[in-house]
Amino acid sequence: MSTFQSLPGFREFYPEDCAARNGLFRAWRAAARRQGFVEYDAPVLEPLELYQEKSGEEIKSQLFEFEDKGGRKVALRPEMTPSLARLVAAKAGSLRKPLKWFSIGEMYRYEKPQKGRGRSFYQFNADILGESGVGADAECIALLVEALKECGLGEGEFEVRISDRKLWFLFLQAYGLDEKKALEVFTIVDKWGRDPETVTKGKLLKYLPDEGVERIFSSIKESTTKYMLLGDVMTGKVEYLNARGKDIIELFKCLESLGISGKLVKQDMSIVRGLAYYTGFVFEAYQTVGTARALAGGGRYDDLLMKLGGVDMPAVGFGMGDMTVSDLLNELKRPLTDEGKLDIYLVIGSDKERPEALKLVGQFRAAGLSVDYPLKEEKFGKQFKTAEQCGARLAVILGPDEVAAGQVKIKDMLSRVEVAVPNNPGLPANVREIVEKGLPA
Amino acid sequence: MSTFQSLPGFREFYPEDCAARNGLFRAWRAAARRQGFVEYDAPVLEPLELYQEKSGEEIKSQLFEFEDKGGRKVALRPEMTPSLARLVAAKAGSLRKPLKWFSIGEMYRYEKPQKGRGRSFYQFNADILGESGVGADAECIALLVEALKECGLGEGEFEVRISDRKLWFLFLQAYGLDEKKALEVFTIVDKWGRDPETVTKGKLLKYLPDEGVERIFSSIKESTTKYMLLGDVMTGKVEYLNARGKDIIELFKCLESLGISGKLVKQDMSIVRGLAYYTGFVFEAYQTVGTARALAGGGRYDDLLMKLGGVDMPAVGFGMGDMTVSDLLNELKRPLTDEGKLDIYLVIGSDKERPEALKLVGQFRAAGLSVDYPLKEEKFGKQFKTAEQCGARLAVILGPDEVAAGQVKIKDMLSRVEVAVPNNPGLPANVREIVEKGLPA
Repeated sequence: MSTFQSLPGFREFYPEDCAARNGLFRAWRAAARRQGFVEYDAPVLEPLELYQEKSGEEIKSQLFEFEDKGGRKVALRPEMTPSLARLVAAKAGSLRKPLKWFSIGEMYRYEKPQKGRGRSFYQFNADILGESGVGADAECIALLVEALKECGLGEGEFEVRISDRKLWFLFLQAYGLDEKKALEVFTIVDKWGRDPETVTKGKLLKYLPDEGVERIFSSIKESTTKYMLLGDVMTGKVEYLNARGKDIIELFKCLESLGISGKLVKQDMSIVRGLAYYTGFVFEAYQTVGTARALAGGGRYDDLLMKLGGVDMPAVGFGMGDMTVSDLLNELKRPLTDEGKLDIYLVIGSDKERPEALKLVGQFRAAGLSVDYPLKEEKFGKQFKTAEQCGARLAVILGPDEVAAGQVKIKDMLSRVEVAVPNNPGLPANVREIVEKGLPA
Repeated sequence: MSTFQSLPGFREFYPEDCAARNGLFRAWRAAARRQGFVEYDAPVLEPLELYQEKSGEEIKSQLFEFEDKGGRKVALRPEMTPSLARLVAAKAGSLRKPLKWFSIGEMYRYEKPQKGRGRSFYQFNADILGESGVGADAECIALLVEALKECGLGEGEFEVRISDRKLWFLFLQAYGLDEKKALEVFTIVDKWGRDPETVTKGKLLKYLPDEGVERIFSSIKESTTKYMLLGDVMTGKVEYLNARGKDIIELFKCLESLGISGKLVKQDMSIVRGLAYYTGFVFEAYQTVGTARALAGGGRYDDLLMKLGGVDMPAVGFGMGDMTVSDLLNELKRPLTDEGKLDIYLVIGSDKERPEALKLVGQFRAAGLSVDYPLKEEKFGKQFKTAEQCGARLAVILGPDEVAAGQVKIKDMLSRVEVAVPNNPGLPANVREIVEKGLPA
């Protein structure tokens, strides 16, 4: 009885869905490789403690955790970064720095399944480790942009909003706020656009003077960091803040040099990122067509490897899930696919011609062509229908007449042109050329 | 502190390992697509009942099972077939038959980690559903052979041993054994080559007369089914057994027609396969170089979809794990790899030339080339060393002299030839051609 179902929030990939998923993977991989990133992977199941140490509270509450048969507390990975940190820390001495690493893997979070959010999803993670300069942040953001472009998105469809937690900390410090208070301010800023302005203002005024709140509002509204960089009210911190200003300018200059359109990146100090471990630039990619949804996010996390692996290594990276990107591509009617196309469907007259036909199948495949054929005797009409349904480029026909004449017929399934060609040792090469160039009309 | 480790039996994939894994995936995928198989996937986490229904006792005892936060009993998948059966059964009416489906996914079994066996491993699964004829068995076995060949293995390095549980059942029935007794005989035969002959013979004599045991021994030793096909002692079953004989002959004829070398497939009635659900031909691929180890196995399972999904659909398929195949390829010093090769390392004179250099990086990447470069100012020598370590095809050099001359230098990292070319809009296309064809010596 068919009472079995998959678990809520977990997806089945029928061939069409699988081709779309693989198309996305191919796009991610192509963009990463073009930028000289190399791929790694890590276990799907990890010791629970790996996440207890540093994952945010939300992630910890969503863990698929259990005790294995050996009494170990384990969890399905909800994010990649802790595993990455362990891999890198374990071989920190022997790995050539900077590392430019990416991975494509599945993550698991027990949350309410909804549009764009499942309990399992794929995530593209890309990180640069071992380089603290702004050049690494720029290269990472460039990959984020290029990966989305490789998926088929362009100007007007997405943008990367860049903020700076270092500037935020310096700014709040200048007003006398410690890290704890700063993180409280972040939770207020994080609701930007969802809370009414007056509410946000009211909340911020509990931490900052009027003038400081004004600076924040002006910076965010005008998409600039400049009001938060000015040193006029900040005793003793002026020079330090201005130095950070140079970094910010440098970051955007690098992006421009790399050919990243200014329309695809902008300053947005309302981005603070939930995770506690970010230490510098943070950024999120948003779709700007239809509903504004986050497509990806990341930032610099210079202290995490020390905390997790005892290794002092600066790092910057991002993660991009598959679901919102796929939803967007489907909405735009531009789905990706990575379907293996079928070159040839071999149409077989009857069981009498079958041995000869299978020989052709073997020869065509040996020539690198993809070939399908009926597994038992079938009427011509049905076979041609199947050839069409499979999307075969050519039908190659071998019936009694063809065998008698020492030929096969080749039908171009697009142009419907049909020709007879000799069934000799040159046939596979001949057919290969027709697959590539089509039959002369 | 670096006290974190991955779980026993789970693998980390540093870039080199990941490239090897991806190379294997690429080989599997290429072979499957050439034969017109399409890819699917299913969740890694499934309801526990999916495996309780039909997985063998061994697999059930090795499940990573737990209760999720919603109180559902769940398990990490130990095998693919139950999920496949569910997918197919759910859409049996609308899917065009026969289905030729494959998947590449990770499986999880809590067993003692050892060489060639982890608690997580990848498995290539390929199945043909909806066709009961021998043609489907042949096509499936052909894919098994072709997939191993695509991995780089050839004659003398592996073989597929083909047996027939249908013949086994008929043969034992003719001696009056019911299914339960037959399965007991299978557990004896399953130890072939591990138990001494006299022990096997003694055990079999408890179920069969001398003459029957002789037939089994002759069949297995001479790699033939013929002694078990002959009907002379079997009253009333003669015709039925002979009909099966025709199927067996037809199977091997199909394989021969498909171009599968007779040296790569052979009859071996000692193969019975542990899983209870096989109903016809069963087969295992073995490496025949070094230690004989099973590389893959499968067979026909015509009743499983009815049992699991309430749908009457014949099926044949196999599974191939990644670990023994990879071990063998490593032993043969023929590891696969799917490393993204780096086309260009851009060598940058100083921060003065950096904006201009980044522009080239962006242009080269836009031309589809993979490009890496130093993320901060570095000495020439170190940059060339990095270019070499990355395996870059070319080094493109932009220092103050080149900028002044409106040129770049291009160094072929293989031939060491270096030329100066104009830094004009034609440069990316120019460099692309050099990457493909090399510099004239």
